[in-house]
Amino acid sequence: MKIAILPGDGIGPEIIEQAVRVLNTLDEKFEMETAPVGGAGYEAHGHPLPEGTLKLAKEADAVLFGAVGDWKYDTLDRPLRPEQAILGLRKNLNLFANLRPAILYPELAGASTLKPEVVSGLDILIIRELTGDIYFGQPRGVRTAPDGAFKGEREGFDTMRYAETEIRRIAHVAFQAARKRGKRLTSVDKANVLETFQFWKDIVTDVSKDYPDVALDHMYVDNAAMQLVRAPKKFDVIVTGNMFGDILSDAAAMLTGSIGMLPSASLDANNKGLYEPSHGSAPDIAGKGVANPLATILSAAMMLRYSLNKAEQADRIEAAVKQVLAQGLRTPDIYEEGTTKVGTREMGDAVVKALA
Amino acid sequence: MKIAILPGDGIGPEIIEQAVRVLNTLDEKFEMETAPVGGAGYEAHGHPLPEGTLKLAKEADAVLFGAVGDWKYDTLDRPLRPEQAILGLRKNLNLFANLRPAILYPELAGASTLKPEVVSGLDILIIRELTGDIYFGQPRGVRTAPDGAFKGEREGFDTMRYAETEIRRIAHVAFQAARKRGKRLTSVDKANVLETFQFWKDIVTDVSKDYPDVALDHMYVDNAAMQLVRAPKKFDVIVTGNMFGDILSDAAAMLTGSIGMLPSASLDANNKGLYEPSHGSAPDIAGKGVANPLATILSAAMMLRYSLNKAEQADRIEAAVKQVLAQGLRTPDIYEEGTTKVGTREMGDAVVKALA
Ligand SMILES: CC(C)[C@H](C(=O)O)[C@@H](O)C(=O)O
Ligand SMILES: CC(C)[C@H](C(=O)O)[C@@H](O)C(=O)O
Repeated sequence: MKIAILPGDGIGPEIIEQAVRVLNTLDEKFEMETAPVGGAGYEAHGHPLPEGTLKLAKEADAVLFGAVGDWKYDTLDRPLRPEQAILGLRKNLNLFANLRPAILYPELAGASTLKPEVVSGLDILIIRELTGDIYFGQPRGVRTAPDGAFKGEREGFDTMRYAETEIRRIAHVAFQAARKRGKRLTSVDKANVLETFQFWKDIVTDVSKDYPDVALDHMYVDNAAMQLVRAPKKFDVIVTGNMFGDILSDAAAMLTGSIGMLPSASLDANNKGLYEPSHGSAPDIAGKGVANPLATILSAAMMLRYSLNKAEQADRIEAAVKQVLAQGLRTPDIYEEGTTKVGTREMGDAVVKALA
Repeated sequence: MKIAILPGDGIGPEIIEQAVRVLNTLDEKFEMETAPVGGAGYEAHGHPLPEGTLKLAKEADAVLFGAVGDWKYDTLDRPLRPEQAILGLRKNLNLFANLRPAILYPELAGASTLKPEVVSGLDILIIRELTGDIYFGQPRGVRTAPDGAFKGEREGFDTMRYAETEIRRIAHVAFQAARKRGKRLTSVDKANVLETFQFWKDIVTDVSKDYPDVALDHMYVDNAAMQLVRAPKKFDVIVTGNMFGDILSDAAAMLTGSIGMLPSASLDANNKGLYEPSHGSAPDIAGKGVANPLATILSAAMMLRYSLNKAEQADRIEAAVKQVLAQGLRTPDIYEEGTTKVGTREMGDAVVKALA
């Protein structure tokens, strides 16, 4: 089985290095091939998603992705900016199902800005549709307004769209995930304002007939943003569109105070997937050896579970991460008094050792 | 000067009653006329925004609005549902600028789900564009997909649009508000994905040239949702579009833990406005006399300041509210041990008394 390794920019290479070391520690050996992406892709081949990188990602059984982006690319034309690589990979690989767990490890309860009783034991799963919605909907652009109160003026515009198939398939992923967890699914929409999300709500309700064992409820996106702050533990699985999911999954991740710990998976219909930490490329700390590699290591574990069918190895990695936390090792982002501050490599060393 | 009083549904009538009492306590006398809106409008005239109600709102110098919505209207066709009244009022009255302060009163620091050090002293102002964006953009609906990967299938769709004038005018409101406060403005967009918001960012940047004394920064909406949870006090004024503003303003309100305290103003170009509490109609506690009337009373204060040009009276009301909090009076939503639990009317009584 072949894994495409796309380190990217900023802290990407450092954290990917540790995840690769962890994978190499397992009995199972994987073929891995590395390619540049994001700013690194632009530097090497003039494009954030070079042809060779896309080809490798398509051929591989799974993609392990670091992070992309750096201020120095801010002035490039949009199609050349690093984040276009991630949008391009999602679309080209049909990675329509983004799974983002927001878990608060008991050892890190103090890292949250929320009161311990509100977040301790938090374990929710956000499932974000990833290849549709206003992210990709055509037409879009800047034009002369063709109608309305500002007819004749310059305007920016985009199209939100969801077809029935797109909603059905992500709903099935969500119901199936809920079935394996607490059996509760919250579908987040804005059906009171948007036609797209009234349609979304209707289809999700229809799909729910196949899952009588899962309790479905519907919540408006503004209310969901409030409830995540007020009582996040009331959620089990949340499913929503690409745009709302972008916002809510980041808010949910931040509730834990330790976004450096949170992995993510983006899957196609055959469980091929791209795996990446939920955090960004953090160019401000790149190269300093202080980035937290655990989200990437846990992403590698998700990869083993979902795409490579090695659930046992995934369990081992997750247990090893818990063990190093229990040992009190902390990168600066999750450091608290009384714990031991370590760098990126030392954290990787500790996970490798715990696996041995 | 004439005020249109629109109590609406759920707890709307109870909380409006207290705000009207407070207004009647002032030396200044105002003409007030009441009309049904939301579910109450539907009951009385078969429409959530009856013609007479809209006419009154248009004629009046300001509108004081309670809340709309009740589960019993969930099965109505969308154009007849209570929330259409609020969308209709915004659009018909050109209330394009929604001002939503998120303030944490020192006495209520315990009500927040966030740690006291993260939110104590919180005082941010969210300015949400209210008459444009995907809320009103045409075309929209359910159709057969005309193109794309799901061509020929049923799909829901909506159009996000912002014309230059719409962005300029809300940007001016925001810069002017920032100028009167901490002189920092954060414009929230999703310019890395949406054409509408790249355009938004460009126009806001252009408007910023008129305000060299205000520090402008730009933030992606997903990051803004995170930063609100991580370090909300770093914000001063936030300006954003209708859809993102809906989500972020509710999240920001919930940070305080006391959404029952938060007023809002929705203004047109001439400072005529609609004033309403940030919370909803809470049908579950309607008629029980336990709803917190302070957000509505504070909305009346905003009305005096922005639309009726009576800043001094506004100050008096705000001081009276602070006084009753200092006295330890609390409705159930903000009750904590060691304080005195009171009902809607008693809270109104206390504010009236404090004003005397
Ligand atoms: C970089 C950006 C295009 C991307 C998105 O909006 O999807 C990011 O925020 C994410 O959530 O992966
Ligand atoms: C009721 C609904 C249409 C409305 C909105 O989405 O604007 C509400 O959430 C608000 O924020 O006032």
